[in-house]
Amino acid sequence: MAKVAIIMGSKSDLPVVKPAVKVLKDFGVEAQVRVISAHRTPEEAHAFASSARENGTEVIICAAGKAAHLGGVVAAYTTLPVIGLPVKTDMMGGLDSLLSIVQMPSGIPVATVGVNGGENAGLLALQMLGIKYPEIAEKLSAYKQAMKQKIAADDAALQAELKEL
Amino acid sequence: MAKVAIIMGSKSDLPVVKPAVKVLKDFGVEAQVRVISAHRTPEEAHAFASSARENGTEVIICAAGKAAHLGGVVAAYTTLPVIGLPVKTDMMGGLDSLLSIVQMPSGIPVATVGVNGGENAGLLALQMLGIKYPEIAEKLSAYKQAMKQKIAADDAALQAELKEL
Amino acid sequence: MAKVAIIMGSKSDLPVVKPAVKVLKDFGVEAQVRVISAHRTPEEAHAFASSARENGTEVIICAAGKAAHLGGVVAAYTTLPVIGLPVKTDMMGGLDSLLSIVQMPSGIPVATVGVNGGENAGLLALQMLGIKYPEIAEKLSAYKQAMKQKIAADDAALQAELKEL
Amino acid sequence: MAKVAIIMGSKSDLPVVKPAVKVLKDFGVEAQVRVISAHRTPEEAHAFASSARENGTEVIICAAGKAAHLGGVVAAYTTLPVIGLPVKTDMMGGLDSLLSIVQMPSGIPVATVGVNGGENAGLLALQMLGIKYPEIAEKLSAYKQAMKQKIAADDAALQAELKEL
Amino acid sequence: MAKVAIIMGSKSDLPVVKPAVKVLKDFGVEAQVRVISAHRTPEEAHAFASSARENGTEVIICAAGKAAHLGGVVAAYTTLPVIGLPVKTDMMGGLDSLLSIVQMPSGIPVATVGVNGGENAGLLALQMLGIKYPEIAEKLSAYKQAMKQKIAADDAALQAELKEL
Amino acid sequence: MAKVAIIMGSKSDLPVVKPAVKVLKDFGVEAQVRVISAHRTPEEAHAFASSARENGTEVIICAAGKAAHLGGVVAAYTTLPVIGLPVKTDMMGGLDSLLSIVQMPSGIPVATVGVNGGENAGLLALQMLGIKYPEIAEKLSAYKQAMKQKIAADDAALQAELKEL
Amino acid sequence: MAKVAIIMGSKSDLPVVKPAVKVLKDFGVEAQVRVISAHRTPEEAHAFASSARENGTEVIICAAGKAAHLGGVVAAYTTLPVIGLPVKTDMMGGLDSLLSIVQMPSGIPVATVGVNGGENAGLLALQMLGIKYPEIAEKLSAYKQAMKQKIAADDAALQAELKEL
Amino acid sequence: MAKVAIIMGSKSDLPVVKPAVKVLKDFGVEAQVRVISAHRTPEEAHAFASSARENGTEVIICAAGKAAHLGGVVAAYTTLPVIGLPVKTDMMGGLDSLLSIVQMPSGIPVATVGVNGGENAGLLALQMLGIKYPEIAEKLSAYKQAMKQKIAADDAALQAELKEL
Repeated sequence: MAKVAIIMGSKSDLPVVKPAVKVLKDFGVEAQVRVISAHRTPEEAHAFASSARENGTEVIICAAGKAAHLGGVVAAYTTLPVIGLPVKTDMMGGLDSLLSIVQMPSGIPVATVGVNGGENAGLLALQMLGIKYPEIAEKLSAYKQAMKQKIAADDAALQAELKEL
Repeated sequence: MAKVAIIMGSKSDLPVVKPAVKVLKDFGVEAQVRVISAHRTPEEAHAFASSARENGTEVIICAAGKAAHLGGVVAAYTTLPVIGLPVKTDMMGGLDSLLSIVQMPSGIPVATVGVNGGENAGLLALQMLGIKYPEIAEKLSAYKQAMKQKIAADDAALQAELKEL
Repeated sequence: MAKVAIIMGSKSDLPVVKPAVKVLKDFGVEAQVRVISAHRTPEEAHAFASSARENGTEVIICAAGKAAHLGGVVAAYTTLPVIGLPVKTDMMGGLDSLLSIVQMPSGIPVATVGVNGGENAGLLALQMLGIKYPEIAEKLSAYKQAMKQKIAADDAALQAELKEL
Repeated sequence: MAKVAIIMGSKSDLPVVKPAVKVLKDFGVEAQVRVISAHRTPEEAHAFASSARENGTEVIICAAGKAAHLGGVVAAYTTLPVIGLPVKTDMMGGLDSLLSIVQMPSGIPVATVGVNGGENAGLLALQMLGIKYPEIAEKLSAYKQAMKQKIAADDAALQAELKEL
Repeated sequence: MAKVAIIMGSKSDLPVVKPAVKVLKDFGVEAQVRVISAHRTPEEAHAFASSARENGTEVIICAAGKAAHLGGVVAAYTTLPVIGLPVKTDMMGGLDSLLSIVQMPSGIPVATVGVNGGENAGLLALQMLGIKYPEIAEKLSAYKQAMKQKIAADDAALQAELKEL
Repeated sequence: MAKVAIIMGSKSDLPVVKPAVKVLKDFGVEAQVRVISAHRTPEEAHAFASSARENGTEVIICAAGKAAHLGGVVAAYTTLPVIGLPVKTDMMGGLDSLLSIVQMPSGIPVATVGVNGGENAGLLALQMLGIKYPEIAEKLSAYKQAMKQKIAADDAALQAELKEL
Repeated sequence: MAKVAIIMGSKSDLPVVKPAVKVLKDFGVEAQVRVISAHRTPEEAHAFASSARENGTEVIICAAGKAAHLGGVVAAYTTLPVIGLPVKTDMMGGLDSLLSIVQMPSGIPVATVGVNGGENAGLLALQMLGIKYPEIAEKLSAYKQAMKQKIAADDAALQAELKEL
Repeated sequence: MAKVAIIMGSKSDLPVVKPAVKVLKDFGVEAQVRVISAHRTPEEAHAFASSARENGTEVIICAAGKAAHLGGVVAAYTTLPVIGLPVKTDMMGGLDSLLSIVQMPSGIPVATVGVNGGENAGLLALQMLGIKYPEIAEKLSAYKQAMKQKIAADDAALQAELKEL
């Protein structure tokens, strides 16, 4: 069974992380969720990242805000794909978090999603796992289909609303 | 054998894309490199993306600049992981490209790397493939080791240079 | 009779779109309002855009936020003028939406209005239609006149208020 | 015959404006090109804009940089569609020009294209004219087709180049 | 007696303008306050600005937001000093207003104060008038002295508060 | 005779300051030009600013870059109008200089012109002096007239060039 | 006993400053807290800064917002280390305060912490004092340990919460 | 004797670091200069930072660009004061480096200087050391005096130059 680790730099980031946990659960993928800080518990970050592969983890999601170093620090200790999830801040809506995560130097990529993009972090992990697990890829197709139907339903509802105006 | 597709929105993006091609080749991974524009050849983008999985592609890298829609357009038609590579522009050093790629709406993630981060786009593709192919994961460890030695060598060279000052 | 299509990427964009619908109605122009997502219903976007001209549509307004690709995707499939309406976001007040829409590559323009500029999107469509329909151009002159009188009335009211201070 | 006016705030903006002139000429549309400054020759701007429609002008393109008021000033005096073309500056790559043009208050839209997007300004004018003139709309389809072939040719050339590597 | 004109582009800007009116009144300077829009009542802006000097106005304050052209448009028609007061918006806290006002081309300066800096706009007008009217310059010294005492009093109050902690 | 002081924080700012000196000279206004640093010679800044009025100075222009405190520091010690001239830097084209100068707290305005806007700093000083000196105001009208003729000449030259194309 | 001075430009900055005061108190370090404005009480700023070292102060923290000159003005008059604490504003979340403080010219550094980073300003002062006072350095180690345990406790609490979901 | 460590994330950062080395040498302070990457040699960063204090280091300067994590990673492992030196990049002149360094979470400050502010990083280290070493504080006073004389000399030279114009 596939295994994803989700780390947040502070427990206050949990609301941003929850949609990632939810979508992984909906797909039947095990998600290990942890609070590990690159700055306050650096040894734990080191230990976690460097043993992640042998512990069966296949993708790591790192959520952090402001000078958001967690993704980079974790990526420094593993060759697993690391997804960076920037948390919204007061500084231009999270531009500090975004730039701190995405602008990684050559050699150590962090796969960055949009600010507060928790669901997308989870879906990206699933797409990565879909390379290996055909059943996850199939579920992603179904998920895509459901989104399509949701938009079509919204469009139909809108037409009804507009007539009443 | 693993297969990665690299698409650029304009042939002028080739210099940004080349480091991605190179690192994939160095790892022995087949890279299909194409010029396909989300805006000028949208049907081709549609055709390419929607048949990519059945054609054996496992990861798609999309390089584009300015209002960079290529990654999002491709991601709309596939459940493969899509890596977005923002190309530097005159607008604040590529902030337009970056935001156009990374700020995807919920449901359609694009795994974004830094502006002009061609090598990182290639390495991220390899990390994703490493989930399935243990030999790629092993080569990534060796690559990491080589980077470490390069920095150590730079440090040693620096010490020598400083003594001469 | 002139016909304008207004597309939004998500039904939640309706409040931003409504002033466009209203001003078109006030001018007696038919407005077809739809929810079509560039990323979640790309085939529908393709189908809609590529048949818009033959269906009698003369201008298309596309409202979207964040990595706002809708205008560009629609413009890729039609030669009708496409108006891009950026929706406000948390990222620097909608700068992500604005840059994603306005910074289009050469060959595929999107006529961009200000962030949350719904009324202006509608008025711009009317100005475009005014090229062909003299009666719309005339109504625009009357509209301009009314704005002038509104400002003059505001100014008069202000003078009265100031006297009371 | 259709008629477009292209105004620039300073003669030094001519290189940005030239691609607009060229594409209009290629389409057989008459382009009147003028240097008129919103700040240095405001009476001329007033006179030009308020008589443009009766002089047969159908679309006005305004190119300006920095605190770029030309588009707004012209739009204040006409109900013709006004296209704003922001000129690149040293301030964040033209963000000052872009925001000064696109963020117009309700009632007076300016159809903004990307920074230094001269060709797109011309094409947008042609798309607007295409509402009225079917022959222009037809030529736009041919233009779109040619772009498609150009990208396909670039892609073919790339494949050849890659083989040689 | 000195005379300052304060113009706002929209009556909704009044709260930003009020501190300017207040400080002028406190100094015994006559303030004419008007709603005149550069875009909606351009002829009025023209008429007002070009006759301001002969009407006895000595400084003009122009408050506007977003694509804030009022200061530039007024400055185009007068050689009186024009003070630009940018109004806060949702776009990065008023950066659009600020850049639209301050980045004027060579030849037509607008003396810009900070975003929502109504009181400073009024004080700057007074400093300009102080060049000619020694009694205003003297009152400015007293004002400066009062500010100094206010800060000293705040500091004293803080010391008392801190002791109680 | 009117007197303007121009201070720069570093002698390397001289090229930005020169157009201000030139326009003042052209108007026959005496300009005292100094290198005084708010941070490196703070006592000199204090001494200069607090004695400026009694020394006959009527307007002070302060040019500085990066964390540009010179205008604010000078304004703290005088009630003369202070014009802030932001010098271009590598940080977003001088946004750091601009914000450091324009965003002054209530009570201490600095009349800010655009980045590297040396000529406008000089002209703004002249407009302020024009409140008191009618002959300067008259020369400003002539200057405005000359600008108008320059644009008209540019426009005429353009028409000639276009015919030759 | 070590002594730190904390200055704020306005009494309204007190909430941002309080965490700095608190952490210094928790470490048993004397904190002198003052309201001194670089612009409204410049002589007091001069007097305070130039006598700070002889008065036994060892580090100075300066909190200010917008065009935040306090840190630079104080640093101009002392060779003590000055910590700049940018206060959040409406302009892009405090980017104006940050750039005004951090972008100091060569020769006069200000040690800048993050926007509204009051606790970090206090901790940075303690780290500086720890160079001289071993007992402060030891307490910093204990503080670091406590942070570590807090994160570990948060992580444990999270695991419990997740089980209940 | 005082000891400062200067770490750079990449040997290519040496030109930015050199002014820091120089000023430390000029003050007779030993500077250990190293290439250590937070991402490529994380164990070395860990080892270096956690043993720095016992090795006699008293201040650490960390220079890095883009997603610049070096300062934060080092600060995570030590209670010594850490100075962050942001290196200029193409992304808005180094705004990515600056925000990645300065916006540290509560508990782990990094004392940030301006972009490419190598000399200031060195001077800030000296100011910190001056808390403990009176001879360094004295040299800083002399340095300040020399800067003052340099500006005075520049001013005198300017006066001579201006006379010749």
